[in-house]
Amino acid sequence: MAAEEREVLAANAAFYEAFAERDMEGMDALWSPRDDVACVHPGWEGISGRSGVMTSWRSILEGPAAPAIACAQERVYLLGDVALVTCVETIPNGELMATNVFVRESGRWRMVHHHAGPIAAGVDDESPPELLN
Amino acid sequence: MAAEEREVLAANAAFYEAFAERDMEGMDALWSPRDDVACVHPGWEGISGRSGVMTSWRSILEGPAAPAIACAQERVYLLGDVALVTCVETIPNGELMATNVFVRESGRWRMVHHHAGPIAAGVDDESPPELLN
Repeated sequence: MAAEEREVLAANAAFYEAFAERDMEGMDALWSPRDDVACVHPGWEGISGRSGVMTSWRSILEGPAAPAIACAQERVYLLGDVALVTCVETIPNGELMATNVFVRESGRWRMVHHHAGPIAAGVDDESPPELLN
Repeated sequence: MAAEEREVLAANAAFYEAFAERDMEGMDALWSPRDDVACVHPGWEGISGRSGVMTSWRSILEGPAAPAIACAQERVYLLGDVALVTCVETIPNGELMATNVFVRESGRWRMVHHHAGPIAAGVDDESPPELLN
């Protein structure tokens, strides 16, 4: 595995560690400081802008319903100073697919986008669910 | 609006036009020719690699359940030669949030990733649904 891919996977792991440990400070630090970041939580409309994204994370991490979470099946897609990671998130009531986007800023990979949505139970690539797209 | 942003929005619009018109040839042409592309259809597990992604589009566009689709509320995030677009997709049985990723290759913005997932009915940023993330 290339060094860059290892770095991106480490950044992705830090995101899930901050999530699992309800570490709002760590969550804030791993997101890019730029304003034009975005986040799509499962079932939510998209949130645009750093302030709104951080407010959403605070409400999740400090809320009573914050789920246990684990990440698996990570795949990295390197696009120069941008990297995508897709992975499966396991939470108590199901599985989600996530797309995480990182940008290399001053040598450090920082998150600029997170999108997670549910995987339908019993679905695989060969049996598309009704809600196609 | 910057010229780059207009170009990215045009590429995003071409994606939804190919989708709405069941234009498999157009869909194939707007995706990057590189192998490391990925796609997360709503409810599906992620698909990695150009061949699998194109097979999934063929099954959707040529299948009996291909939904009518329209795209709105596009937002562009420029990251050098990579651009993200978030938008709301309206299909007959609900709304989806999509993240589309484009890469500039030889002056043309080509899709490398698509991720769409349902927006829960009646949800907004201030009232997080139960399935948190």
